[in-house]
Amino acid sequence: MELTHIEHIGIAVSNLEESIKYYENVLGLKCYAIEEVADQRVRTAFFKIGQTKIELLESTSPDSPIGKFIEKKGEGIHHIAYSVKDIAGALVEAESKGVRLIDSQPRKGAEGLNIAFLHPKSTGGVLTELCSDK
Amino acid sequence: MELTHIEHIGIAVSNLEESIKYYENVLGLKCYAIEEVADQRVRTAFFKIGQTKIELLESTSPDSPIGKFIEKKGEGIHHIAYSVKDIAGALVEAESKGVRLIDSQPRKGAEGLNIAFLHPKSTGGVLTELCSDK
Repeated sequence: MELTHIEHIGIAVSNLEESIKYYENVLGLKCYAIEEVADQRVRTAFFKIGQTKIELLESTSPDSPIGKFIEKKGEGIHHIAYSVKDIAGALVEAESKGVRLIDSQPRKGAEGLNIAFLHPKSTGGVLTELCSDK
Repeated sequence: MELTHIEHIGIAVSNLEESIKYYENVLGLKCYAIEEVADQRVRTAFFKIGQTKIELLESTSPDSPIGKFIEKKGEGIHHIAYSVKDIAGALVEAESKGVRLIDSQPRKGAEGLNIAFLHPKSTGGVLTELCSDK
């Protein structure tokens, strides 16, 4: 597959507003959007740094994936998302090389991108998202 | 502080050679350097993707920071490193805003960069590295 850049890094946070304050006041980044992704049961906040976004993820339900992640591991880095030229082809290729897919077909994610996740059991413990390259 | 881009993402791995195979054969990235950082007791492998590097970290000693991380949490994302314009000034600023510093002064890291870590207790669980911007 052909990856072009890191599209975003997903970070699980307990309190979106508190974390936005840290990213703005300490790291000097600017939150440019807050978006609720209903089917993932998260509220997200976006910051841009170079080619990459920081995506803060706050659970809106204790049994959401982010809620469970925080319960088990605490706040912290949740996933890496790579921008890829041909997401459907990349999934076929990854599966043919023995990678377990969470999403066998691309689906709509935040900001309207086509996205799919690879299972961390196949990727050295790194929850890995592929995003369509616009 | 003024961050310019994500310099690298550090990923803790159990076996550097096995992980290099995954990043090359599945993700299509190219390992351009392997470097031992003796004082951190790690071997590192570097890949470039857009503005950012992936830095794989294999412990060379069970009681190294990476060895302990893997024992406790397993393989996975270990830290985010931001490139910053004035690293010494950034540390003074972070501390003045209540951030706990792991390194109160910049020190030499991999690839000859000046680096310093912020404590994850102050950064929402994200081990955060600042790197001098070349």
